Formats: sequence, structure tokens, C-alpha cells
Amino acid sequence: MSEKGVSPWMQRSLALAAKAVGVANPNPAVGCVIVDAHGQVLGEGHTQPVGGPHAEVMALRDAQARGHGVRGATAYVTLEPCAHFGHTPPCCDALAAAGIGKVVAALTDPNPKVAGQGFARLRAAGITVEVGDGEMAARDLNLGFLKRMETGQPWVRAKVAASLDGHTALLDGQSQWITGEAARTDGQRWRLRADVVLTGIGTVLADDPLLNVRLPDCVRQPHLAIVDSLLRTPPDARLWQVARRQVLIAHQSEAGLDAQNAQALAARKRALQALGARLLPIAPCAHGLDLAQVLQALLEALPGAVNEVHVEAGAALNGGLLAQGLVDEWLVYLAPKMLGGGRPMAQRISPLRALADANAGIWLAQYRVGDDLCLRVASKASV
Amino acid sequence: MSEKGVSPWMQRSLALAAKAVGVANPNPAVGCVIVDAHGQVLGEGHTQPVGGPHAEVMALRDAQARGHGVRGATAYVTLEPCAHFGHTPPCCDALAAAGIGKVVAALTDPNPKVAGQGFARLRAAGITVEVGDGEMAARDLNLGFLKRMETGQPWVRAKVAASLDGHTALLDGQSQWITGEAARTDGQRWRLRADVVLTGIGTVLADDPLLNVRLPDCVRQPHLAIVDSLLRTPPDARLWQVARRQVLIAHQSEAGLDAQNAQALAARKRALQALGARLLPIAPCAHGLDLAQVLQALLEALPGAVNEVHVEAGAALNGGLLAQGLVDEWLVYLAPKMLGGGRPMAQRISPLRALADANAGIWLAQYRVGDDLCLRVASKASV
Repeated sequence: MSEKGVSPWMQRSLALAAKAVGVANPNPAVGCVIVDAHGQVLGEGHTQPVGGPHAEVMALRDAQARGHGVRGATAYVTLEPCAHFGHTPPCCDALAAAGIGKVVAALTDPNPKVAGQGFARLRAAGITVEVGDGEMAARDLNLGFLKRMETGQPWVRAKVAASLDGHTALLDGQSQWITGEAARTDGQRWRLRADVVLTGIGTVLADDPLLNVRLPDCVRQPHLAIVDSLLRTPPDARLWQVARRQVLIAHQSEAGLDAQNAQALAARKRALQALGARLLPIAPCAHGLDLAQVLQALLEALPGAVNEVHVEAGAALNGGLLAQGLVDEWLVYLAPKMLGGGRPMAQRISPLRALADANAGIWLAQYRVGDDLCLRVASKASV
Repeated sequence: MSEKGVSPWMQRSLALAAKAVGVANPNPAVGCVIVDAHGQVLGEGHTQPVGGPHAEVMALRDAQARGHGVRGATAYVTLEPCAHFGHTPPCCDALAAAGIGKVVAALTDPNPKVAGQGFARLRAAGITVEVGDGEMAARDLNLGFLKRMETGQPWVRAKVAASLDGHTALLDGQSQWITGEAARTDGQRWRLRADVVLTGIGTVLADDPLLNVRLPDCVRQPHLAIVDSLLRTPPDARLWQVARRQVLIAHQSEAGLDAQNAQALAARKRALQALGARLLPIAPCAHGLDLAQVLQALLEALPGAVNEVHVEAGAALNGGLLAQGLVDEWLVYLAPKMLGGGRPMAQRISPLRALADANAGIWLAQYRVGDDLCLRVASKASV
């Protein structure tokens, strides 16, 4: 995500906001820098974990701790200051009370409790307001929060690691490691930022993955969700061995099963529930589970807590999400090697009939990570 | 290809060299800028078509035409000045005779007729010589010439256009158009730069392509080579309808055929020869033709004329070249769309047994072209 013409102060504010990513969830990651007329930084801060202060209050406190008055100073914030009482009082009131003279904000907060009211209250208090500096970068830090506020739905990011010719594994399943350690660490950062990691039973059975975040600065693990129609997740899978928040398993409801299968399912249910799993029964459709219903069940199970879903799955689940138009972003790590055959990134059950039916996306970013390349493509409908 | 620390004059010289790409073949594309001590450009030039002057002489003539003396001036050249009589006299003598005081060169010329002798003669004439400024970029402009001089073999660049998930077409063969017009035009520039465009009979039969260069500034068409074991190239294919240089068809020699098949092959041979095709019989191997032999036959058919081979083929020929380790560079245009199924870029007949057997490459470049992304990856053995 490169954006021209972002002011240096907003760049600093964005760097602060980045520190709140994966920390402030499900609140937005916001940064704030307060600068005086001589270009001296008076205070800075970023959103704290839920219940803690927002970026603006952190920056005001920082200025106070440094012994700086902020009267007439300019605050660079990456999102419109809030105008409502949540866990904390409205930030726009705090800025006004402190005597801030000008607020430069990257984005309007689409949260209906804010949505321009923060700016209106700042202006009513005599504060100059400018909006738009660093908008693209600020949006990129909060894709999930913004989508949830705008549509009620999470931002679904599907991660794949593949060869240059698009294979995630050899045909026999060998996939460790197509990409290098730097790419795997970068992938962990995207996991960290998500609220839910979503995988499929195929991946659980084939790779027995942990699917947790193993970064030293991780302060909260994402939830784990598994699409597992028949509840085949093994009770001795490695995923149960690591500390995490909830494990949610979307499975086929007993509705369509005969007595014997329903009984077997019930037994597996009890075993998984004993491990702490939360089961989400979904009415079956022609091809396994309807994935829009799976996402909906996740949202209802974790109300207000799902900004971003991080999918790490195989071709079947990826293909299902693709076919249902449920992927907002593909996060693709490409290794500079050709395999000349292997497993695909995504496999639709019903192939496309015409090339024109493929939805064109837009490039969000391309960056080198170690020996590999990371490509981020968003669905056009999502941005 | 981005390179830090290239001097501005060498950058200008590289830009001039770029004008000779696809023009000077099979000579290297070289640029030359002559600058005086006050930073004034006295003259500039680039390699002309075979038989015409080299870059240094063009720059000296340009300075003369502008009425500038060059005594004591510095010449920035993208390749070591030649030290031998070819179609033209040695450039190092011309530089010395003109009184040039200093030569900054990007690269040593691996041509055994030069190979440091140019620099030695310059130094012997009292000229200061510096080497290495802009080396990577100069190398990138002449990958084929340099490889031919260093190994006797051409640089083989395989171009594919694919979806983000690596499919070049839907399973039914629909491939027009996965990537956009800008990517197709960019692909034409790479064709233009090549000496031979190489394709397979599968592509000829499926797409009936022209495979010529359709850019307004094209001064020489590459040759066309087709890998076509059984000489199935249709005499009414569109490729015969456009002006080009030679069409070479590598086919299975009659050696392994029974009388009836040999007779049929002979009839098709006559039809293709009547169209001007040059036939290259190759002894058959287990899977069609041995592609190393095909390349060798091309080199022998076009002696000293093949720096770069531009492959535009389907998964079979690409997979064959990959399996034989014959691809120096993959030129991949990726569209920001997922197909969820389709044809692969390359299909090896014998799949890899282990991921570790995939040769890792290095990224030569990544650049956006219209809505698509161009990725260039070189085999590590090639660079």
C-alpha cells in the first residue's frame, strides 16, 4: 500500500496505528501525534486493548507526562475521533477540552455512532478539521473494522503460499516448505491481525497444524474456526494443545442424517465439546456446507468481535469461498520456483464457464519478503 | 531491475542502450554518453543495426556534429568498448584517437575478442577506466548476448499470462484474454527483443497465432521456431500470412517411423518447405523431441544469431523445457483474478518427487503493467 503525498506527521501517526493492529481488536487501530506550530512532537499514542484509552487520549496523556501544553496544537489522527460514550468518553471532547487547535484525520469513521459527528463536534468547539491525509493507508490498517461498520460483515482474507506457477503443494500433498521462513513469519503477522483463523477439515487432517500465532509480541490469539461437516476433527489433533481463545466448528446439522450417522455425529460432538469446542450446526446444501451461512454463524457466535477472518485452507474451502464470492482479499506468497504440476490454490466445484465470469480484483500491495513475493489482491466489490 | 547508486550519466547511457534492444541484435545493445568536466553532454549514441556504427562512434560523431571537442571528456558506456575489427574498427581506438580522458563502463564484454582487452588498450592510451557503474541494469539489457558469449547457448525466456492462481486458460482452452491490453503490448516488446520466438504445435493448432511483432517501432521481426514432431503445422495457418524472417520447424526425423508414417511425413514436409519453412529433423526420444537438441539445432541453423529465445507455448512445451532445465527466465504476467481451476503454466511429464527438487530462482523484476503485474524470475544457474 503506497500512497503519495501523505504528510510526514500522518505517516508517523500511521506507524503508531500499526502498533495497535491485532491489539485493539475489535476496535479500530488508530494512531495520534500531537505537534506544535514549530513542528515539535508534544505527544503520541495509539489505541489500547478494549476498555483502554483510544489513541487521542494516549497522545494527550503523553504530552502531559512530557510537560507539554497542547493549546493550539495540531493532532494528526488516522481515524475520526469518536463522539460517543463506549468503554471510554468521547475523544473529540477530550481534544476540545485540551485546547487542540486543529485536527487532521485520515478517515471518517463509518461507525454509525460516529460517522461525521466527531468532526462536527470538533468544528463546533472551534477546532479546524481536515480529512483525507493518508486515507488509503489508514483504510488498509482497518479493512475489517471498516467493512464490519459499513456492511455488518467481516473482511475475509484468504492466505496461500504457492510456487510461481500457482501450486500450493505437490500432488502428493508435500507443501513444507514452498515459501521461506520470512514469508511464514509475515503470514503469522496477518494471522495475528485477524479475529478468527478459518480452516477446513482437509487441512486439519492432512497437516495437523497448530494455527495459532507464534510471534513474541502477540498479546491476543485469534479464535479458530474449522469447517468440518462431519466433525472429523481428531480430539488428539495438535490444535488442541496450544493456548488459544475459542475453537468453533461449523458442521452439518443432524437434520439430513439417518439415525446411524446422526448417532455417530452426536458421539463426536460430545468428544469435541469436552475439549471446549463450540459447535455451530449448519443446514447442509448440495456441496457440503453453505459457506455464507458458516460466516453468518461465526458472526452470531462472536457478536461484534469479528473484523477480519484469516483463511488458511486448501483448494476445496478456498474454491468454495471463491465461488460464493466471499473472499475480500487474497494474500498470496509466491516463491520464485516453478513446480510444473501440483495442487491448485483454489478449486471450484463448478468451473467457470467463461473468462469474463472471473471477477477482476485490484492490487492492494506487492512486497518482497525474504526470497518470496507477497501479493495482495482485493475483490473489486470489497474496496 | 532496480539498482541503487547508478550515476545519472550511466542512467542516461542505459536509456540510450535500451533504444538498441531488438535493433542491434545479435550485437549487444550499448549506449554511450560523452560529458565534459562541467557536466555538459557533448554527444550521445547507441548501437546501430549490424554493420552500422557502435554506440561510442555514434556518440563521437554526435559530438562532432554539434561542434564539440571531446579532448579530456568522460565517456559513459554500458559495455566495454570493442578492441577488434568486426564490421567496424575497434571503438577503443576511436575513443583514444578522439582524446577521451576517461571511460566509465558498466560491464566487461565477455566476448573472447574483447574480454578486458578493450579496457587494456584504453589504459595503454592513457585513458582512465572505471568499471561497474550500472552493471546490473546493463546486464539485464543484454542477457542473451552475454549468455551466448559466456556459454555459447541462448537465453531462453518463457512468457506466460495467467490468473493469480496460475491458470493460463480455462480447462476448455479459453484464454483470450486473461491479462489486459497493456500486458499484451508489453509482451510484444519482449518478443521484439528476441531473436527467435519458439512455440509448440499445440499452441499453433489451438490458437492459430501470428506470433509476429506488431509494434510500430519494430525494425526486425524475430525468427519463428515451432516444435512440431509430426509436422502438423497447417499450411493455411495464419502464421504464414505475415512478413517475418525464417520459420524453422523442429520435427521428428524419419528414423523411427514406419514406411507409411515416413511417407506421410515426407508429404507434409514438402508442403511446409513450399511455404518457405526450414525443417530441423531431430532424433526422437521417449517423450517427443529432446528439447536440448531442438535448441542446439536452432543455434546451428542460425549461427551467431540467437541471443534470446522467447517461448510462447502451452503447458506441455513449457513443462518439457522446465524439466530439462532449459528455461533461463520466466516472464509471467499475472492478472488480479482467481479462476479456481484451469490449465497450468507448465506441466512436467514426470512430476517432481520432492519440493526440494524444484530449482529456486531469483526475482529479476516486478512491475505493474496496466491492471496486471509482470514478474520476471531467473533460474539461479543462469545468473
